[in-house]
Amino acid sequence: VAPADVADRVVVVIDVLRAATTVATALSSGARAVIPFETIEETIMRGKAYARGEVLLAGERRMVRPEGFDLGNSPLDYTPEAVGGRTILYSTTNGTAALTAAFVNATATVSAVRDALNEGGDLTVICSGHEKHLALEDVVCAGRLVRGICDGRDDVIRGDGARVAESVERPFMGGVVSVAYEAAHARSLTAAGFADDVHACLTLDRFDVAVRYADRQLQLAGVATAR
Amino acid sequence: VAPADVADRVVVVIDVLRAATTVATALSSGARAVIPFETIEETIMRGKAYARGEVLLAGERRMVRPEGFDLGNSPLDYTPEAVGGRTILYSTTNGTAALTAAFVNATATVSAVRDALNEGGDLTVICSGHEKHLALEDVVCAGRLVRGICDGRDDVIRGDGARVAESVERPFMGGVVSVAYEAAHARSLTAAGFADDVHACLTLDRFDVAVRYADRQLQLAGVATAR
Repeated sequence: VAPADVADRVVVVIDVLRAATTVATALSSGARAVIPFETIEETIMRGKAYARGEVLLAGERRMVRPEGFDLGNSPLDYTPEAVGGRTILYSTTNGTAALTAAFVNATATVSAVRDALNEGGDLTVICSGHEKHLALEDVVCAGRLVRGICDGRDDVIRGDGARVAESVERPFMGGVVSVAYEAAHARSLTAAGFADDVHACLTLDRFDVAVRYADRQLQLAGVATAR
Repeated sequence: VAPADVADRVVVVIDVLRAATTVATALSSGARAVIPFETIEETIMRGKAYARGEVLLAGERRMVRPEGFDLGNSPLDYTPEAVGGRTILYSTTNGTAALTAAFVNATATVSAVRDALNEGGDLTVICSGHEKHLALEDVVCAGRLVRGICDGRDDVIRGDGARVAESVERPFMGGVVSVAYEAAHARSLTAAGFADDVHACLTLDRFDVAVRYADRQLQLAGVATAR
């Protein structure tokens, strides 16, 4: 991503499998905040600054929970019992910025973006992908956001990437579960025993929250209201 | 593009507007070879090694012919009268590798790829894009190649990118002319007075030739035969 693509813009980063899904789940389950770290070592180091019981170390390397960590990257583990009231130090291989989105909070993200762009402005949607390659599930999710953001607005100018995402989302309009059979990352997670995670990640609008990255924390960006 | 994505693979580079279209046009018009250069200076320098009338300097910067060059990047200028029997020293801002493809030689490229992969193997299709961004016309062209390459073959495993390209191509199956109204680069070329170029670039299978990059030259890779 070039600096010009994000300067002075609303930025949404999509990572359906599984980081953005897991973060939305954690915050919906009452976690105080999710603080992202790039490396395992940083995460452990920062954990030592907190009182016991106040934080959880969470994340993944090659799909599984790092040694000594409390939680892996399965959204199903981020229950209110496990994470409520706690700060989560979270290490994944994908970065974070501005709003993060997945299918589980797609409509809430659409609302947050529409609010942010109410007075005009530009939007960049970044598909995280998987291991530096395009991930089908992220492009489908981007298409859903684009469709929602443009709904009823003839004044939105869509770039080529937005048009690609819209085309790709079209066959999945009825439901996104079939992404599980088409996307390479979904198939490799399923093969590794994470089929329930894939299903959880491919559930639309399970949470009515947008997630914002600010002050180095991932936090709730307010509950979306019906409109 | 990571080295692992191209090592030991058949590689097709797509650049519909306009480099791959122009190169296919030049070779179909009887140019002896097209030799690509990265910079204007290199192109001029190499030109001095040839006898007068043997070579043409060609290329573009910001859509137009560089000063002192014989040809710009409009495929319409690469007529048999202009380029027949001559070597073209060609400078564009996009690189080259293996096979280069556009709509004008899509079916011939499909045949060449199917021949190359007849005994098995892997294929990487690279969409050049425009100014470091995705270009809709290149993704649609990639989708057409993927569809042609997979036609009647159940054994082809498509990655997420191939599936995205297929989805994007679907609405254009009937014809690719409407890409002109949707793709940002097509619209900016049209606005700059190159509408005829856009039309020429969005013509399917005008040439029955695949174009291969080998020995530092772009050359005909043989005429495709009916199958």
